[in-house]
Amino acid sequence: MLAGALSRFLEYSVWLRRPGAGAAAQYAVLAFGLSAMAALTVPEARSHDGIWLTACLWCCIGYFAAVILVRLRTAQRADAIRNYVLSYSGITDFLGVIPIPVALVFGVEPANAWLLATLWLFKLTQNSPGLALLGRVFMVEAKALTGVAVLFLMILFVSSALMHLIERDGQPLAFGSLPAALWWAVVTLTTTGYGDAVPNTALGHFLGSMVMVGGIATFGLWTGILATGFAAESRRRNFIQTWDLVSKVPFFRTLDPSSITEITHMLRRIEVPERTAVIRRGKVGDCMYFIASGEVEVDVPPTPVQLAEGAFFGELALLGDSIRTADVTTTRETTLLVLDLADFRTVMAHHSELARAIEAEAKKRRRDIERRRELQARGGTASL
Amino acid sequence: MLAGALSRFLEYSVWLRRPGAGAAAQYAVLAFGLSAMAALTVPEARSHDGIWLTACLWCCIGYFAAVILVRLRTAQRADAIRNYVLSYSGITDFLGVIPIPVALVFGVEPANAWLLATLWLFKLTQNSPGLALLGRVFMVEAKALTGVAVLFLMILFVSSALMHLIERDGQPLAFGSLPAALWWAVVTLTTTGYGDAVPNTALGHFLGSMVMVGGIATFGLWTGILATGFAAESRRRNFIQTWDLVSKVPFFRTLDPSSITEITHMLRRIEVPERTAVIRRGKVGDCMYFIASGEVEVDVPPTPVQLAEGAFFGELALLGDSIRTADVTTTRETTLLVLDLADFRTVMAHHSELARAIEAEAKKRRRDIERRRELQARGGTASL
Amino acid sequence: MLAGALSRFLEYSVWLRRPGAGAAAQYAVLAFGLSAMAALTVPEARSHDGIWLTACLWCCIGYFAAVILVRLRTAQRADAIRNYVLSYSGITDFLGVIPIPVALVFGVEPANAWLLATLWLFKLTQNSPGLALLGRVFMVEAKALTGVAVLFLMILFVSSALMHLIERDGQPLAFGSLPAALWWAVVTLTTTGYGDAVPNTALGHFLGSMVMVGGIATFGLWTGILATGFAAESRRRNFIQTWDLVSKVPFFRTLDPSSITEITHMLRRIEVPERTAVIRRGKVGDCMYFIASGEVEVDVPPTPVQLAEGAFFGELALLGDSIRTADVTTTRETTLLVLDLADFRTVMAHHSELARAIEAEAKKRRRDIERRRELQARGGTASL
Amino acid sequence: MLAGALSRFLEYSVWLRRPGAGAAAQYAVLAFGLSAMAALTVPEARSHDGIWLTACLWCCIGYFAAVILVRLRTAQRADAIRNYVLSYSGITDFLGVIPIPVALVFGVEPANAWLLATLWLFKLTQNSPGLALLGRVFMVEAKALTGVAVLFLMILFVSSALMHLIERDGQPLAFGSLPAALWWAVVTLTTTGYGDAVPNTALGHFLGSMVMVGGIATFGLWTGILATGFAAESRRRNFIQTWDLVSKVPFFRTLDPSSITEITHMLRRIEVPERTAVIRRGKVGDCMYFIASGEVEVDVPPTPVQLAEGAFFGELALLGDSIRTADVTTTRETTLLVLDLADFRTVMAHHSELARAIEAEAKKRRRDIERRRELQARGGTASL
Repeated sequence: MLAGALSRFLEYSVWLRRPGAGAAAQYAVLAFGLSAMAALTVPEARSHDGIWLTACLWCCIGYFAAVILVRLRTAQRADAIRNYVLSYSGITDFLGVIPIPVALVFGVEPANAWLLATLWLFKLTQNSPGLALLGRVFMVEAKALTGVAVLFLMILFVSSALMHLIERDGQPLAFGSLPAALWWAVVTLTTTGYGDAVPNTALGHFLGSMVMVGGIATFGLWTGILATGFAAESRRRNFIQTWDLVSKVPFFRTLDPSSITEITHMLRRIEVPERTAVIRRGKVGDCMYFIASGEVEVDVPPTPVQLAEGAFFGELALLGDSIRTADVTTTRETTLLVLDLADFRTVMAHHSELARAIEAEAKKRRRDIERRRELQARGGTASL
Repeated sequence: MLAGALSRFLEYSVWLRRPGAGAAAQYAVLAFGLSAMAALTVPEARSHDGIWLTACLWCCIGYFAAVILVRLRTAQRADAIRNYVLSYSGITDFLGVIPIPVALVFGVEPANAWLLATLWLFKLTQNSPGLALLGRVFMVEAKALTGVAVLFLMILFVSSALMHLIERDGQPLAFGSLPAALWWAVVTLTTTGYGDAVPNTALGHFLGSMVMVGGIATFGLWTGILATGFAAESRRRNFIQTWDLVSKVPFFRTLDPSSITEITHMLRRIEVPERTAVIRRGKVGDCMYFIASGEVEVDVPPTPVQLAEGAFFGELALLGDSIRTADVTTTRETTLLVLDLADFRTVMAHHSELARAIEAEAKKRRRDIERRRELQARGGTASL
Repeated sequence: MLAGALSRFLEYSVWLRRPGAGAAAQYAVLAFGLSAMAALTVPEARSHDGIWLTACLWCCIGYFAAVILVRLRTAQRADAIRNYVLSYSGITDFLGVIPIPVALVFGVEPANAWLLATLWLFKLTQNSPGLALLGRVFMVEAKALTGVAVLFLMILFVSSALMHLIERDGQPLAFGSLPAALWWAVVTLTTTGYGDAVPNTALGHFLGSMVMVGGIATFGLWTGILATGFAAESRRRNFIQTWDLVSKVPFFRTLDPSSITEITHMLRRIEVPERTAVIRRGKVGDCMYFIASGEVEVDVPPTPVQLAEGAFFGELALLGDSIRTADVTTTRETTLLVLDLADFRTVMAHHSELARAIEAEAKKRRRDIERRRELQARGGTASL
Repeated sequence: MLAGALSRFLEYSVWLRRPGAGAAAQYAVLAFGLSAMAALTVPEARSHDGIWLTACLWCCIGYFAAVILVRLRTAQRADAIRNYVLSYSGITDFLGVIPIPVALVFGVEPANAWLLATLWLFKLTQNSPGLALLGRVFMVEAKALTGVAVLFLMILFVSSALMHLIERDGQPLAFGSLPAALWWAVVTLTTTGYGDAVPNTALGHFLGSMVMVGGIATFGLWTGILATGFAAESRRRNFIQTWDLVSKVPFFRTLDPSSITEITHMLRRIEVPERTAVIRRGKVGDCMYFIASGEVEVDVPPTPVQLAEGAFFGELALLGDSIRTADVTTTRETTLLVLDLADFRTVMAHHSELARAIEAEAKKRRRDIERRRELQARGGTASL
């Protein structure tokens, strides 16, 4: 019942119905809670405002618990409670709520128990497509990255063994044992350089220089591998996401599969929230748009025109003098496929059928705009 | 009236008419002003030469105000004052002039008020195509970069919570609270490593090593994403900038759209100031040039030859023995399209029509050079 | 005889017959040995548990010696002892066993002799395809990397000579000689920044700033070169590894060489251990698989179906509603060729023959799944 | 006369006639000289061995002067003294010899005058194709790099002005003036982090964290730009260098220009010194070679076979079982064009004419090897 009330509150309150508001609220609570937790570890703040801070933290936990209840209820309706509880999203939701009370119950000191609030950060990973992409890059390039790691380990051990030999008599504290020398080697190889352990003999300086340069080379390889992997993976990801949308646009249906593949590689997907300007009149235009889902409103006088799923717009600036002739705004959450100028040229050159269709539509629209202007000039606003 | 006088001064003074001179003057004033401002914050300099330095700074403000007046007047002529004032350029211009006097009037200490001169730096962004490009890269790759930021935040919080647990008893000052531990974690993850907070237990060293390696991995991903995004964006930008120029060169007008698209991808745009050497005789040539706008002078004896918009040059070295046969210099500000040797070969191989046209012209020019040499040898300079 | 016994032990013990178990054991011994060696260099640990640690280390050497004996015996059977001994693998094996006892015999202090255990790390490089790849990248890009190294050397020497001139009077210890200044320059150029030598004059600060920025620029070039080289090399490596596998899949035999080349560029090779899930029912599918070697089991009711070398699976999700319809598990070590969704689309569009074959197979399988479901619904499990 | 003697000495001494020996000698003298110069700045070494070190340095100058004399004489023969003196090579040669004596004559203290020996390092840039390449990358990407530099400057000034405001009261020495705060900002933005100036207020820590993260972002962009530029430039450079060689190989002459362009993109140029093994029997082969200039010797029994300019080898391993069947060694300095396996497949698939030619030659060679083996088996070595 409480869950139902909460669910209704969260679902029907006006501002939460705007897309993204739920996520924004979650992020706000998260930031607020982590700040309170951090403040609680500062001795002065704890002795002064400890009670208030703890209260804030309990409120955050309450909020997260409420979110779980809402989600459980939604899942229950779809008969998918087990799915939700075992999903990544469910597990991270529970990680935010359960560990802290459990720790407190088991007698962990409050100061330590609240540190578990760092687990809340895992909520950030729930809807991050970027993180999944990064994970895949690491997986695909695993062999090469392991190679770099082996290189790193070898430089690490060999250099710290040598440095231990060279400097242990002069600086028994910093280089007297291999673990101590390893700490120096890590700090140096990663170019962090705290300065708490620094070789001070000529030979030590020479070896240290080699290690630093080695660190840069290793680091460069690492970055190079990740850059290569990321480029391939993001191209692939983009294609998969775009393909389904493309096949939904009626305009492209006449194309043979080979042309669809080609055009899919050129399009980029963007998601635009409700009532957001996509095109502003008078700006220079360097792309055109296809509506994969949603609706936009073209602000042509005297009355705006709606364009629905499957339509395209923005082609006039690419065909003509490159200046946008009207404002275009979304009326609801809309997914658009963007075709950049460079690729637009290629499409117009290689796919004569599409070129003709786009040009015909552009011609019709130009005439329409003409006519509207005339009508408006005559003061006539009724006939359209 | 004053504005008129200034405007006339800035517009008609000889050295300012050279392209780029206005910008160079602005940069010089900027560098001078920032140095004076920096000097003003040094106690000795302030007590010694404070008056002179302040005078210099007022001169800089005066100069920037004069620039605004000139620009306002130019805008007034084009009936576009509002446009200028609300443009990015206008706002940054006003940011350089207004805040400091206002701050002084409102009683802000001079030493602090003059620090607002750092706002002058925004003038640098007015004409920087590079910055706009970088901004777009960040926008297009936003999802992946957010993924990295989330990763960064998670490593940050988890590692600082753990380090706080491990080291707080030994080093209450550096790790006694989570904010302090967070400072250590940021300094370490970014591989900055000041050395003001360093773990000194074995466990702390181990965790610290993990954080450093994590920092390098995160950093590598970040760089990889930006590299990928930049490559795509700069290819796209280059195409758009080149396309319009290509369609203006008559030589390419006979091509079908598909070939134009292909050739546009090969050309690179460069802007050459007035009276600058493009080609030097005797050097090895590895590209040819098309004139998109402007004019060049080919220094062939006895009298130099002018080539105007739409002409091409530099093809002789690519067809023959690769040594440039004449100096080529611009006579006014000129935009050139560069075709590198590698792409030249491709063009000659795939576009037989262009190949024939270039070869015909090259043949004609070789004959012409022959004839000129003969004439010169005979001492005849009149007949050409 | 001992060798035979050992060999039999290592070869026939059950858990070691699982692929990878031998390597895992070696890594475990390696990690254990290096930890013991590191502990031995810590004075307290040495005086306390020195004997036990030394015993552990001797055990590790014993294990490595046993591995050599086994390998020698295997080589003897193949009449290739000389090959093994002179191979990289053989040399690194002997490096792990011989140097330490030799050093001890020649009277090297045990604390130092055991440091030679770092040589064990070379065993990690025996089976690392990543390392070989990295080596090739360095070789191919040698010229450009040398260019960066020369740049690095020049900045290093010029900046340290200048800094020596500027700071030697103020800080004779840190900048009094060129070698000392060189140490500062290396620490700064690599952005390590220990802080043991820091310029403290205005001019020194300015020069130091230049050096740091120069360090970042140099580092950026270095990374850029390695990224470029790695991208080219990994594409090439992947092609070579995949080609042979492709030509073994009967499905591709009907293709002309040009199509095989094209498809080889699209496939990615993965090796899956025995009894591992490749596809899980209900997940979203974004790739299909060809079996290059090995066997998989498709878990369709009532009885699972085996697919052998040359077969393909996973195409249903790509052709239909993108949800996997059955679990697929390997029955033995299997090499698969993965075709991602993006490339699958291209194949289906460009190679009508393959497209027909895949679609025919998919149709047959869908019918088969239908029929099996009906049978199962009727309770009939026998007739299949 | 002296010059003549020296020239003869340098030209005719046996070991210097080996290619690269002259360069190696120069590098050795360079390294030796710089070490002596560095030693001379160490007080103890100067007071002890100052005379010997100075003598060594004079010897180095003598050597460099001798090299200039030899080069002048060579230039004189070609009537090109002025060319040499004004060339980059000439200027750097003179920079190594003249400044030090001049400085000594003008009364500069020896300790300082000898620091000019760092100018010797410019000799390293004389033959470095890598450096020229890097220079071009910087030029082509100038706009984007300027954008990053502007970003860097803005973060630098804004953050140091803010940090000056925040920390000047607490740490007047480190943040009391803007120049001091700028030094901190550079050290932090480049992630060097000496630790000589560290913010110690909460607000300072927050701002410092922002600066560090900003530093990493800026750095990432910088690397990304250089990586992109380097990839494009090195592809271009490789094409130009390879093109001329390709057009010299008779084997490719039958191809149309479009195919030559395509194949040029696939080939990689390598230069192999005299008497160096290119292929070793029994190794796995993953590329074939075309001889652009020079000669190789194929070690087939009973008598080796020479292959001259225009021939190819190494194709047998690519067509057959991938194992090299014979050693191949250069007989003089040789330039080879390498065709990797991946590209070899493409060539064989797309250029049927080349494929036939290569296969015919391979067939002939296989028969030849057969016949030679038979002959050798029969003990007959004469008839070939």
